Amino acid sequence: MSEDVCCKTVACEGCPALVAIDERRRFIVTLRHGKVLGSDRGVLRHDDVIGRPYGSWVKLSSGVYAVILQPRLIDYIERGFKRKSQVIYPKDHGIIIMLLDLKPGMRVLEIGVGSGFTTAVLARIVGPNGHVYSYEIRRDMAEVARRNIEAAGLADRVTLRVRDARDGVDERGLDAAVVDMPDPWAVLHVLEEALTPGAPVVFFLPAINQVQRLLGALELRRCWAETRVLEVLLREYEARADALRPRTTMIAHTGYLVFSRLTLRREA
Amino acid sequence: MSEDVCCKTVACEGCPALVAIDERRRFIVTLRHGKVLGSDRGVLRHDDVIGRPYGSWVKLSSGVYAVILQPRLIDYIERGFKRKSQVIYPKDHGIIIMLLDLKPGMRVLEIGVGSGFTTAVLARIVGPNGHVYSYEIRRDMAEVARRNIEAAGLADRVTLRVRDARDGVDERGLDAAVVDMPDPWAVLHVLEEALTPGAPVVFFLPAINQVQRLLGALELRRCWAETRVLEVLLREYEARADALRPRTTMIAHTGYLVFSRLTLRREA
Amino acid sequence: MSEDVCCKTVACEGCPALVAIDERRRFIVTLRHGKVLGSDRGVLRHDDVIGRPYGSWVKLSSGVYAVILQPRLIDYIERGFKRKSQVIYPKDHGIIIMLLDLKPGMRVLEIGVGSGFTTAVLARIVGPNGHVYSYEIRRDMAEVARRNIEAAGLADRVTLRVRDARDGVDERGLDAAVVDMPDPWAVLHVLEEALTPGAPVVFFLPAINQVQRLLGALELRRCWAETRVLEVLLREYEARADALRPRTTMIAHTGYLVFSRLTLRREA
Amino acid sequence: MSEDVCCKTVACEGCPALVAIDERRRFIVTLRHGKVLGSDRGVLRHDDVIGRPYGSWVKLSSGVYAVILQPRLIDYIERGFKRKSQVIYPKDHGIIIMLLDLKPGMRVLEIGVGSGFTTAVLARIVGPNGHVYSYEIRRDMAEVARRNIEAAGLADRVTLRVRDARDGVDERGLDAAVVDMPDPWAVLHVLEEALTPGAPVVFFLPAINQVQRLLGALELRRCWAETRVLEVLLREYEARADALRPRTTMIAHTGYLVFSRLTLRREA
Repeated sequence: MSEDVCCKTVACEGCPALVAIDERRRFIVTLRHGKVLGSDRGVLRHDDVIGRPYGSWVKLSSGVYAVILQPRLIDYIERGFKRKSQVIYPKDHGIIIMLLDLKPGMRVLEIGVGSGFTTAVLARIVGPNGHVYSYEIRRDMAEVARRNIEAAGLADRVTLRVRDARDGVDERGLDAAVVDMPDPWAVLHVLEEALTPGAPVVFFLPAINQVQRLLGALELRRCWAETRVLEVLLREYEARADALRPRTTMIAHTGYLVFSRLTLRREA
Repeated sequence: MSEDVCCKTVACEGCPALVAIDERRRFIVTLRHGKVLGSDRGVLRHDDVIGRPYGSWVKLSSGVYAVILQPRLIDYIERGFKRKSQVIYPKDHGIIIMLLDLKPGMRVLEIGVGSGFTTAVLARIVGPNGHVYSYEIRRDMAEVARRNIEAAGLADRVTLRVRDARDGVDERGLDAAVVDMPDPWAVLHVLEEALTPGAPVVFFLPAINQVQRLLGALELRRCWAETRVLEVLLREYEARADALRPRTTMIAHTGYLVFSRLTLRREA
Repeated sequence: MSEDVCCKTVACEGCPALVAIDERRRFIVTLRHGKVLGSDRGVLRHDDVIGRPYGSWVKLSSGVYAVILQPRLIDYIERGFKRKSQVIYPKDHGIIIMLLDLKPGMRVLEIGVGSGFTTAVLARIVGPNGHVYSYEIRRDMAEVARRNIEAAGLADRVTLRVRDARDGVDERGLDAAVVDMPDPWAVLHVLEEALTPGAPVVFFLPAINQVQRLLGALELRRCWAETRVLEVLLREYEARADALRPRTTMIAHTGYLVFSRLTLRREA
Repeated sequence: MSEDVCCKTVACEGCPALVAIDERRRFIVTLRHGKVLGSDRGVLRHDDVIGRPYGSWVKLSSGVYAVILQPRLIDYIERGFKRKSQVIYPKDHGIIIMLLDLKPGMRVLEIGVGSGFTTAVLARIVGPNGHVYSYEIRRDMAEVARRNIEAAGLADRVTLRVRDARDGVDERGLDAAVVDMPDPWAVLHVLEEALTPGAPVVFFLPAINQVQRLLGALELRRCWAETRVLEVLLREYEARADALRPRTTMIAHTGYLVFSRLTLRREA
């Protein structure tokens, strides 16, 4: 099979596949001859999948159907929620993209990388002509992020530095920033050097006290404008035509988003 | 002034500018020698802005400051809310981008164009190597959209057709779709022809009854999977460090988002 | 007509009536011979209503129907919203009743009376054998409240004092309290004297900073337990069977509710 | 100790006690000499509690403090959530009280009793001069409810009938009703006979489809007015002065509330 088709429209050996049995049984696997995927709904042989086009339905050993799909970035991110709390969610990523006016070719600063999900979201949209400069203080987190970014095939457009951004960053003239750290007021001077005037920034903060302190700090510096504080709530429904209803529980809080734009310094 | 700088970092004659006095007084203007911007906070002469870098603070006649910024796409969209209700909001655009796995180079179908805001969001992210094929049944709406898309400088990557998509679309092998029309069940067969298997689709629907009918239709066709129904709520705060509180009123409903992915047809 | 029936089941001269034309045209009137109620949907002569049982439908001059109902307390309260913001809403009153374990016979303290709506809610439920002791610092507000409480026929079970509660209250051994003032930390010692140990208290606070300061103060005193912070959101729908959907806008914030129970003092 | 004091201000043998260690460790016990309450934070001997005033702090074997309080009705209800989903929550009870204009002396109909929590809420507020007539089709549920109502000391003001309310109820001239059953459209004629004109009714319904069907049925009968559909969302915070934030997860849906008032029949 030609390189061109493999992983693009056909689920080949070595390609990733989302195997979706139902809304609670969704698995991301790398397809390998001889391997099987086990679940309480039956067993799926990878060999029954390999070589079939994405979008195909295959039968598990139990006779139940699963559909084979290319995993989207959001599928990887939502899968990651099982392992780690307090991450930025796709509901937040979405509005961050809009607030930052993100588009291909942009050069974006990221402070606080976590698992690299947000890095991947940014890197995808800035495209091969853009770049993401990511700073992470913890070596172990940076390693996790590096693996995730590589797995997503985005390593060429991400520069990941294991360093304390409070001591400064190397870049200048960047177009936008995402800051996910507990004390973002400690990097305002860094942002002011690294970003171009007018650049939009989103700060992600779990607790209200952090929001208040950041608002106070932004005001004092006299070079930030258009500041907004917002929260995004995602309400998901049981998707049944005959018994539609919101899910009983929901994620009611991931974090607050503080948005602001860097300006030139205003006179006192 | 060189072309390269004008409108990129400097607010020149003919460039767009967001003039932000405070959170309720935000104006988007095209800068023209001799013109003035009037507000209840005083008057701003365009000539006091032209030639200054974006991010600058300028004084109105009253002594109050305004900041001059490049308008983001979201600024144009939010401004549009004054004129038209029931549009897709940035909170929805954000999660749509995530659900569709949108990235540079994708070819996207849009059915129901409205004011062209969603078209612009999609076109920005697919970039110069991607394309958006947009179908709008109403000639007057299509004209509004065409002007908005041109103003955003995105006309080269959008094909806008004034036609009833229920009769079919011209494209094949598209990567994703956004459908904003009252009876989306009437275009499922069109989507199934135009999209590549596995392609994600988001349907935007104001009323619950529409969601139910669409869910029923998707189920019957046996070639859709991963269906989700969701709503995004954006809660905005008064951004004051010393008196932080949610805004008294909020937009509590724009529409429901139904997500699904096209598959090959499942056996009965 | 006998006293017993008048205003109980029949809309008589002098009785209050809720005239409901549709969900946006709802009026509370005192019925008087010879008077008319005008609206953009036509005119209603009070004489067409007087003497008819509550629950009757009457025709306006335009032929449109209106229904005549006894006003509930919530009807009076919701009508009041047109005139004054930042009041406690029925959504908040409801959970306050539950949190305070309110029932007939209870003796309740209220600090900060506003328009007297909350006073009326409390007084209604504690019944003729209970009592509400209400403190209001502003004479003008107290007057408004006094009129509202009298109109509701609840004056016999409410003692309204125009006084600064921070200087102490006269009562002892009260069962519960509602506190609606900007600086509730200034009355904690007053509550501790006036309430019986175990008594539940709800504080109503518009801004987050107030909540934080109150939480800090409660902790320091070592005689409060079971503290909770909550918000109630009421989402209302367009009640149409064929086009059900949430209303476009909603009241997204009235205030935060801080709940706590007074205890004996804990050793350090 | 005199009867008058026991269980009123002092935690005696046989009295109920809420033992609150922290927000996740809250227990309701009946105090008995010689018994102990075990928890992962240590052991509490009932004998260390008996005879002490409510509001007292006692030490567990570990040295950790617990506070001893009279359980409120809401404490019993919230404890019940561990055992049974899909019940009406206090957030719903609160607004129900307001919508029904509930007060001492009222005679209320309840169809669908469940665990009896809602019955208890209603019975508490209508007081000794009011009454609640409750219909439950399932004998096992009615038994659970009967025990709960007796435990709450409210049996004298509740008549619990194990019967299918769709076949009619015995009462006439009732003041209000709460209906919690899957097919409330099947009892509209029963409500119309049993309630006094103008009486407010709240229907509790988990799924949207039920709401739609009920709205359709109410419209057809031409004797209902002021219909509203609403949802109450309760958002709870981590109550820490120095790290205030909403809880990560919340109950996003219990059920929809449909409110309406019975009227006389309108002409076609």
